[in-house]
Amino acid sequence: MAVGAGLWRSLRAHQVYGANTDVGKTIVSTVLCRAVQQERRRAAFLKPVSTGALNDADDRHLAKFGEGTLTKCLYQFDEPVSPHIAAKQKAIPRDEDLLASIHQTLSGWAQSDIDFALVETAGGVHSPGPNGNSQADLYRPLRLPIVLVADSRLGGISSSISAYESLLLRGYDIQSVLLFRDDYYQNHEYLRDYFNKKSIPLVHLPVPPARPDAVDADSQRRDEESMAKYYGQVSRESEILRLLEEASLKNAERIQRLEEMAGRARDVIWYPFTQHQGMQAKDITVIDSAHDDFFQTFGSGSASSSDSALRPTFDGSASWWTQGLGHGNPDLSLSAAYAAGRYGHVMFAGAVHEPALALADRLLKTLDNPRFTKVFYTDNGSTGMEVAVKMGLRASCARYGWDASQEQISILGLKGSYHGDTIGVMDCSEPSTFNQKVEWYRGRGHWFDFPLVKMVNGTWKIEIPAELREDLGSDVEFESLGSVFDLERRLASDSGQRYKQYIRRTIEDLVQKQGMKFGALILEPVILGAGGMLFCDPLFQRCLTDVVRDHPELFAPDASAKSSPSWSGLPVIFDEVFTGLYRLGRPTSASFLSVHPDIAVNAKLLTGGLIPLCTTVASQEIFDTFSSPEKSDALLHGHSYTAHAVGCTVAVDSLRTMSDMQQNGAWDNYQADWQPTKSVAVSQSTPDVWSVWSQGLLQDLSRAASVESVFAIGTVLSISLLDSQGGGKFDRILQTQFLADIFPGYTSTAGKDLQQSLAAGGDQFNVHSRVLGNILYLMSSVTSKPESLREMEALLRSSLM
Amino acid sequence: MAVGAGLWRSLRAHQVYGANTDVGKTIVSTVLCRAVQQERRRAAFLKPVSTGALNDADDRHLAKFGEGTLTKCLYQFDEPVSPHIAAKQKAIPRDEDLLASIHQTLSGWAQSDIDFALVETAGGVHSPGPNGNSQADLYRPLRLPIVLVADSRLGGISSSISAYESLLLRGYDIQSVLLFRDDYYQNHEYLRDYFNKKSIPLVHLPVPPARPDAVDADSQRRDEESMAKYYGQVSRESEILRLLEEASLKNAERIQRLEEMAGRARDVIWYPFTQHQGMQAKDITVIDSAHDDFFQTFGSGSASSSDSALRPTFDGSASWWTQGLGHGNPDLSLSAAYAAGRYGHVMFAGAVHEPALALADRLLKTLDNPRFTKVFYTDNGSTGMEVAVKMGLRASCARYGWDASQEQISILGLKGSYHGDTIGVMDCSEPSTFNQKVEWYRGRGHWFDFPLVKMVNGTWKIEIPAELREDLGSDVEFESLGSVFDLERRLASDSGQRYKQYIRRTIEDLVQKQGMKFGALILEPVILGAGGMLFCDPLFQRCLTDVVRDHPELFAPDASAKSSPSWSGLPVIFDEVFTGLYRLGRPTSASFLSVHPDIAVNAKLLTGGLIPLCTTVASQEIFDTFSSPEKSDALLHGHSYTAHAVGCTVAVDSLRTMSDMQQNGAWDNYQADWQPTKSVAVSQSTPDVWSVWSQGLLQDLSRAASVESVFAIGTVLSISLLDSQGGGKFDRILQTQFLADIFPGYTSTAGKDLQQSLAAGGDQFNVHSRVLGNILYLMSSVTSKPESLREMEALLRSSLM
Repeated sequence: MAVGAGLWRSLRAHQVYGANTDVGKTIVSTVLCRAVQQERRRAAFLKPVSTGALNDADDRHLAKFGEGTLTKCLYQFDEPVSPHIAAKQKAIPRDEDLLASIHQTLSGWAQSDIDFALVETAGGVHSPGPNGNSQADLYRPLRLPIVLVADSRLGGISSSISAYESLLLRGYDIQSVLLFRDDYYQNHEYLRDYFNKKSIPLVHLPVPPARPDAVDADSQRRDEESMAKYYGQVSRESEILRLLEEASLKNAERIQRLEEMAGRARDVIWYPFTQHQGMQAKDITVIDSAHDDFFQTFGSGSASSSDSALRPTFDGSASWWTQGLGHGNPDLSLSAAYAAGRYGHVMFAGAVHEPALALADRLLKTLDNPRFTKVFYTDNGSTGMEVAVKMGLRASCARYGWDASQEQISILGLKGSYHGDTIGVMDCSEPSTFNQKVEWYRGRGHWFDFPLVKMVNGTWKIEIPAELREDLGSDVEFESLGSVFDLERRLASDSGQRYKQYIRRTIEDLVQKQGMKFGALILEPVILGAGGMLFCDPLFQRCLTDVVRDHPELFAPDASAKSSPSWSGLPVIFDEVFTGLYRLGRPTSASFLSVHPDIAVNAKLLTGGLIPLCTTVASQEIFDTFSSPEKSDALLHGHSYTAHAVGCTVAVDSLRTMSDMQQNGAWDNYQADWQPTKSVAVSQSTPDVWSVWSQGLLQDLSRAASVESVFAIGTVLSISLLDSQGGGKFDRILQTQFLADIFPGYTSTAGKDLQQSLAAGGDQFNVHSRVLGNILYLMSSVTSKPESLREMEALLRSSLM
Repeated sequence: MAVGAGLWRSLRAHQVYGANTDVGKTIVSTVLCRAVQQERRRAAFLKPVSTGALNDADDRHLAKFGEGTLTKCLYQFDEPVSPHIAAKQKAIPRDEDLLASIHQTLSGWAQSDIDFALVETAGGVHSPGPNGNSQADLYRPLRLPIVLVADSRLGGISSSISAYESLLLRGYDIQSVLLFRDDYYQNHEYLRDYFNKKSIPLVHLPVPPARPDAVDADSQRRDEESMAKYYGQVSRESEILRLLEEASLKNAERIQRLEEMAGRARDVIWYPFTQHQGMQAKDITVIDSAHDDFFQTFGSGSASSSDSALRPTFDGSASWWTQGLGHGNPDLSLSAAYAAGRYGHVMFAGAVHEPALALADRLLKTLDNPRFTKVFYTDNGSTGMEVAVKMGLRASCARYGWDASQEQISILGLKGSYHGDTIGVMDCSEPSTFNQKVEWYRGRGHWFDFPLVKMVNGTWKIEIPAELREDLGSDVEFESLGSVFDLERRLASDSGQRYKQYIRRTIEDLVQKQGMKFGALILEPVILGAGGMLFCDPLFQRCLTDVVRDHPELFAPDASAKSSPSWSGLPVIFDEVFTGLYRLGRPTSASFLSVHPDIAVNAKLLTGGLIPLCTTVASQEIFDTFSSPEKSDALLHGHSYTAHAVGCTVAVDSLRTMSDMQQNGAWDNYQADWQPTKSVAVSQSTPDVWSVWSQGLLQDLSRAASVESVFAIGTVLSISLLDSQGGGKFDRILQTQFLADIFPGYTSTAGKDLQQSLAAGGDQFNVHSRVLGNILYLMSSVTSKPESLREMEALLRSSLM
């Protein structure tokens, strides 16, 4: 269950964390709440989980001394130990329920006359909550501004700063620090300087009266009197009042900033792929933070000042296809911070550092391609593909003795391919609306049309483009998606033969009649993403590589003599920037084709969705082409941050985590759902193909009146909608879908309608999605919770059926 | 003073940190040392700074119970408070001296028969050292493997994990965790699970005997007896022995890994700009970690097993020109971690997040160019320049009505320019050895030769290339570097007139006679970095922009009518990837020319040297060219991690830090050194030009027999060496220097010789540098310590004079 981050216009809500246990959180809370009450405003105090003797409970203390402060405790445990131990003796609330209760309580207060609320934690920042995980992690989805109670005792400087750092690296904003004065240790002096440098105000309070030694009624009474006196004085201190004023101001400023952000962004940001004419501030989503699968978006649906100003919104495009392990993942944050602390950046010429080497090793293992021996680093898919193209062209020119400065060397690919926005790799896609206005674009290649995989009316089928039916035959139906991938069987079939003949004939024609020279075959295996979520018949991609490799003579008359044990015909480049690294449920998308490319490019999920990094991995033979006594034969490419330590470290941890998930059966339930039912006869060899999206959903949606077809594989779900123009036509898709992604609603309003329906969301959350013309796709991370996915499936059904 | 990180083959040295004060660090140290001694090996214990009563001192405790453990304390303070307070009463060691003493002590032990050493800290991880800064920061240069003593008390789970995180984000490796058993709170159970997930062994010990209440001789004796008994038992526990064995194994494995790394790297890494043929493992520098200005390099100069295996090596290329605020900067690590925790990554189409907006705002302020209104984000200088080229070409094609798909639009630039390795921006440089073997490279432009600035024999001069003397006149001498930049005066001079006439004539010829069409002027202001550290006469660059802007009619017959208040003639693109953001001592290098470009690209220093990020900033008028009702007129560019939150957050903090340094006069001493002396008559208007490298050094080196010329500006020092082929010739430099950078020693051995001399280093550290043919350059960060710079100056003098 998704919970919104806590932000209200009418309520300043904070979470109180302690630098350690017993630092005086409750006393500080009492001082603050009482000061608010004295100013004739209403304060409230929430203790989500309380441990310790009942009459000692913090909320009781607040009720007694808080001068009318409203108090509430959600869960009370008697033992004065960490909640995770106390909870062993009692029914434990689930973390999601605890968070929901807190949010609900605060929302209720926001709708009443309360305007200041504190949510107090137990113990220190990492003291475990009822389910044993750190409170700093547990409460992170709420991301309330923090009041940190520092430690005034010996050692308190250290524990206070460490607690601050632990909160910071989880993305919390620390709004103020309070602690008791101790004139001997003077922690408050040191910490004031420290936090002032970070623009965080620190206020120190007099030491509260000592607790009574005896428990008799008399000392109890004396204790109460002296505490009352203490609070009476301290809660009127001018520093406290100033702090509360500042907190109030900060809350207002934060909301004002969020209100202005979209307008400011429109003024100063030049957005990628965006036509700014007519763009209004309201077209820009303001994202305050993100956690796990959810953006916290500002303003979506908040009507009155007492409504929550932030709303959880499922990141339905996996943040441009990058997310694997969730936003704000604390493990990846720590990995990044460790590498930043150990190295910063290390220039990568003639030097090596552990993360770069460890990632190369792990990647070679992950890709599991016996040809691969070398890893080249760049920063993003586009630059990684530039490198791949330089590699591939050099290898073929060297083998075939071509002088590329004198003649045009082209590439072979598929229509609708997309490899990035730098001009060199733009040249690897066919001319289209997308690149026609890039002044230096010159398409250099031939691009095949191809058959598509889709589910229509509950049946998986291969759809042959009309122009190709004569050559490739007519549409074919399949019992399951798995059987579409049963390539050994299909290669031997009539389809396989026809595909190969057609491909071979086409290349012959291009080379012999048109005089073209080809330097590389470039494919996005299985799905052409940016081109429009085009699910290419894997048999067609397999036949392409087979023909290219089996017939080197197609590309140069005497080529067969020169072919080697490794690449043959043309170097085969797989652009797995989008499809690789578990996006489709497997470490590589090449494995779906049972093809070992000579060069592969990975990015996006490589760092689990945190920071830019890209790898271009190559075979020894490709590498050897650049080896020569001539130094200028080297591959002349490199960026300043090549193999930057932070990216490599995070990538090593991401790959390890995803690999562990696979081995530990994290996706078993999804896989079970995709097992062919017994009623369907399936050969033993049917490959394991599955999705986090349920088979049932696909069946239902594919039968919906407004749906042309659907598919799902791995974390990707794609819904092709019928529109008034008759939608779903193959050739139109190829020409316009990328553009439609850039400009939602460009060609079709069908996608846009569904998108709006998802954006309005259900009870729990909204859904942020991207459309490609009449195609709406959703993409999860590999850690998305089944509940969230089922909630989205329910939303889809209710929108489309 | 630079100190080496602590790693010895013959000595396992660890630093003992406590999760808090009073967690039993000394008892744990005693247990470990005693266990070592019992195994008939030698242990030693070092307390760098001790506070508290003398007979209570930790080293005394070790001496008493350590079963022969060698003990040492470097500084003793009597007060039981944090060292920063105790130190107020006593002479305080400087941090550098403290570190040097520790390193020296450990090195001495490594050369004796000691094979296990513990260096104990005081209090918690962030407890202040004698000079008031956190111990975790203070001791970071040593980066000893950590023994963390966790806290077994209530709240100890939290403080232990926070302490661990604080260490981790400073790049420490935590090797083991120890703590006392507490069966009530069971912290050891929780923490064991926690640390085991991180592959860190945790060992828990029985609670030690309670300290005696009384201080009489009798209870003292009883206390000693019970402690001795405790140690006798605990130090023989099998878990302790296993832990020590593991530590021993880890030390050996770490060294083995370091030994193998270069060979492994050669096997699996495809290095940028590197000819691998003949490359041997010994050509690869193994970098174990980095801190501030220093790499910790493995194996450099370590002869015997008792020598330190790591050596501080000054990062003399500023890690490929990226470093501004030092490696492993804890503030930047925290910024990165905060953004990772708050956002992870947020896709940047139709959305905005605070760091992207804050950076756009700050950058516009930093660049201080009234034309600039829009910020476009990419990942590196190459992609940022691709965007700049797309912007510039579109603007000129739109204004002049050219159809770029039908005719070639070229760019104007300088010879030796370099804008990145993606093919589109490679096309912006003239044909050379560097790009001739990139199959799709097609140079599209005209590139001017230009006059160079250099100091020869103590005098600043402008050197005119031989081929241009007829047009531009002969070499001119200057009184100071400042007067070279006195452009208003120089524009009015004969030089200014001749430069302009020559430029105008050349363009006329190219357009009218050769029929070329130009779409943009692209310059690297002041210094052409990758092209060979070519210091271009700023007057020439200024004249180029003036001519282009003052004579729009040069580029299209009716252009003057179409010029607008903003750009005129051609869009002017400044590639400040290398020269911008304080690299040359100012926020922009454009300011040296007093030119406001229409488009500027920044990267490298943008994140202070931590992670990839690039910005392309443009004027409103350039932006407006892409504004249209036609959606496909938009700028079609974007990468997955466009404006990634981590990069933007770090960049905001970096820019703020560098701006604060400037405002707080951090570089005043350098600037004072570069003030013209009174004996030289200088006009009031002479601009402020300075360097971290001393004027005196330049004077001296420029007179050295082996030196052709030198220059320094900002953080950059460049030394052009004479070689056997007569070195320093302008045209040769242009053709070969970039290549020479790629392949050190390609043309000249002079640079290589000096490089080796610096690599051998002085007493304190080695220097890692890069050569460009016969040019050796050094580059500091903006925070480099004057002592380090002076040490390098001494090294240079002794090598060259």
